[in-house]
Amino acid sequence: MKNILILGAGLASSALIRYLESNAKEFDWQLTVGDQDKDLVSHKTCPATRAIKFDVFDSVQLNVEVENADVVISMLPAKFHPIVAKSCLRFSRSLITASYESQEMRGMDEEAKAKGVLLLNEMGLDPGIDHMSAMKMLDRLKGEGQRLTSFESFTGGLVAPESDDNPWHYKFSWAPMNVVLAGQEGPAKFIQCGKFKYIPYTRLFRRTEFINIEGYGRFEGYANRDSLKYLEKYNLQGIPTIYRGTLRRPGYSKAWDVFVQLGATDNSYVMENSENLTHRDFINSFLYYHPTDSVEVKLYRIMHIDQDSDIVHMLEWLGIFSDEKVGIKNATPAQILQSILSKKWKLQLNDKDMIVMWHKISYIEKDREKEVNLTSSMAVIGEDSNYTSMAKTVGLPLGIATKLYLTGQIRLTGAHIPTCKEIYEPVLNELEEFGIRFNEKVL
Amino acid sequence: MKNILILGAGLASSALIRYLESNAKEFDWQLTVGDQDKDLVSHKTCPATRAIKFDVFDSVQLNVEVENADVVISMLPAKFHPIVAKSCLRFSRSLITASYESQEMRGMDEEAKAKGVLLLNEMGLDPGIDHMSAMKMLDRLKGEGQRLTSFESFTGGLVAPESDDNPWHYKFSWAPMNVVLAGQEGPAKFIQCGKFKYIPYTRLFRRTEFINIEGYGRFEGYANRDSLKYLEKYNLQGIPTIYRGTLRRPGYSKAWDVFVQLGATDNSYVMENSENLTHRDFINSFLYYHPTDSVEVKLYRIMHIDQDSDIVHMLEWLGIFSDEKVGIKNATPAQILQSILSKKWKLQLNDKDMIVMWHKISYIEKDREKEVNLTSSMAVIGEDSNYTSMAKTVGLPLGIATKLYLTGQIRLTGAHIPTCKEIYEPVLNELEEFGIRFNEKVL
Repeated sequence: MKNILILGAGLASSALIRYLESNAKEFDWQLTVGDQDKDLVSHKTCPATRAIKFDVFDSVQLNVEVENADVVISMLPAKFHPIVAKSCLRFSRSLITASYESQEMRGMDEEAKAKGVLLLNEMGLDPGIDHMSAMKMLDRLKGEGQRLTSFESFTGGLVAPESDDNPWHYKFSWAPMNVVLAGQEGPAKFIQCGKFKYIPYTRLFRRTEFINIEGYGRFEGYANRDSLKYLEKYNLQGIPTIYRGTLRRPGYSKAWDVFVQLGATDNSYVMENSENLTHRDFINSFLYYHPTDSVEVKLYRIMHIDQDSDIVHMLEWLGIFSDEKVGIKNATPAQILQSILSKKWKLQLNDKDMIVMWHKISYIEKDREKEVNLTSSMAVIGEDSNYTSMAKTVGLPLGIATKLYLTGQIRLTGAHIPTCKEIYEPVLNELEEFGIRFNEKVL
Repeated sequence: MKNILILGAGLASSALIRYLESNAKEFDWQLTVGDQDKDLVSHKTCPATRAIKFDVFDSVQLNVEVENADVVISMLPAKFHPIVAKSCLRFSRSLITASYESQEMRGMDEEAKAKGVLLLNEMGLDPGIDHMSAMKMLDRLKGEGQRLTSFESFTGGLVAPESDDNPWHYKFSWAPMNVVLAGQEGPAKFIQCGKFKYIPYTRLFRRTEFINIEGYGRFEGYANRDSLKYLEKYNLQGIPTIYRGTLRRPGYSKAWDVFVQLGATDNSYVMENSENLTHRDFINSFLYYHPTDSVEVKLYRIMHIDQDSDIVHMLEWLGIFSDEKVGIKNATPAQILQSILSKKWKLQLNDKDMIVMWHKISYIEKDREKEVNLTSSMAVIGEDSNYTSMAKTVGLPLGIATKLYLTGQIRLTGAHIPTCKEIYEPVLNELEEFGIRFNEKVL
């Protein structure tokens, strides 16, 4: 019997737990799931799974549980992973997470190798499936001797068409604050036709590209911050174009830019008297004073929005002009905006979300000097607001990697992300059984 | 004989040193001026003044010089003031600076009082003359029993009309990087007609007000970050409108906003290959890729700038489209922009700068319930690029306060800023002798 320890029973854990539980009998696994909230665990697990109240700062408990496990999966907030990783190294246990590999984690590479331990990070959707699906194509094309000229990759977490009942064509399927703060960490950096390009936050949502995905319609993409670091991750140094982005439905970005331009996404200061502001007061705080002009007229005027623009409908649908109270003390603009948005963008019990991923790789064909544009796309629809496609696409790669590790099909040691064939090939193969498959097409 | 120690012989010290030297004989003062660069001191001082090489981190030297002084004036960068202040407290010496009173300095208030020491900060132009001239009016109006409804205050450091030979009507008369970074520390916060208002950086240079100053023409003002803290500083709690801003000539802000929107004022990251970029490459880094469109066309298109707009002339005059090399390694966008601007906006040897300050106070007249709008304005023209109006308006208040302290006319102890009558009245009176005078007018 093998013991699997899962730490954290939050958002993406539903699909992970279901996958591991459904394989537990066949592979003789004992699952332990720990969370600060034990009821949450009990609610998400079968009786055969051991549910425990878990506190990452209780080092005695952490060490006991880690020592007792054959592999650990951390679904905790990323900042806690190093604490777990240190305990794993102490007892020579392997660790799998869906978070970006931090510098601290990278620094444990040698010790992990020496102890025969695998520290596998970025094993979710984005990061995760993006790496695996991209590297599968890139490795194949390189193997064929093609000369790569461009790599573009976009991912989006959206609402499924059947649950899309709002003019933004968007609902929250993941941490709402990340959506409000998107793009604020620094300029988007990428390379286009050999030139380094930078897009500041203030222009980010106005420099979108349109993308069509067969069967799923039209999307728009805005640039992610971090395209340059993928040069190394994907071994693409010298490629003339590299660009990563986030997908939304057309029209979203231009309307969202209204909040950016207003200053309503700022998370750096607390607004005076925030608990007594109405939605309308909140918007008015960012507009010039006028004794009689309405908040609507002032907003549309400074943003140059025509009265018959779609944006008018989108903003009014959100209720930003209503006299409803914000009701949060000492709140930043971003926190207030998130609260207003959540009233409208919350995934309802039976709502389905949707994950879309799209890569485009251009290359000069060997011997023919002809440029080929190859696209690869994937879309997954969720089951409901619990088994979301977000939870599936994060949880299943984690679960599959855990199975491959326990069955000896992944034998790597040290700190890794799933860019190597030993990981991506079997994981992508099994993901196809769950309907997570990529369609390639030459444009 | 009294000893005066001046630390720092940089930008604003020329006028301060000249003032103190010209009074030294009459009042029997011995001046010591210390700077890292002793030649700079020798160049700026008379033979009777003791010039020393000074290092603020040499605590032995600092303590010797402070103990030997009757009063210390620190013209060092603001972050070094607490080091000097601690030495002053140790030897019970008073300290005068033109910098904002930091929390650390405020924290020394009690000890200073106990030791009979004055720590007088914000004793320059802005902060400094702004406090004094505003408080003089505010105290008078409050004494008359008027009900204040609005306080607005604007200051600008510009080029004098006789040296104004460029379409921006602007040259650097102070730390250029502060001009490039202006407005980036957070949103401008103020109160208008009882409502808290917030302007984000992305809108700051598009929400200007026009101001006419008799004899000096038309200006525009954009909001400073910090209006709210003046409620307490000026004892104006509850006033319906408070707004502080910075003055430029009309047209400057709208054109400057092009750099803001581009992301060219960002100081948070280093640009790739910055030393080899040309001015033109620099601008192009922030624009979309196109195989044939010119940089000019792309910029004007995304910024919606007509070909016959003044902004076209202003941008082209700056040379931002030239093939000249930037030539700075590992530079941020802000550093590159500063370098490009400095080539054009540097104050030439015989150029004169100009300081303009303008207050507007509205109040309901006692007994008559009639609103009165009172303005007060001040303008000073510099002598040349050394004795600038900036150096005069910073250095003279420092010098005058030093004289008042040494002659026993300022007897305060503890940490202060010049908002009290004991300071502002005699300082403003003497400033008038140097042509720094305010004209009040009822609108």
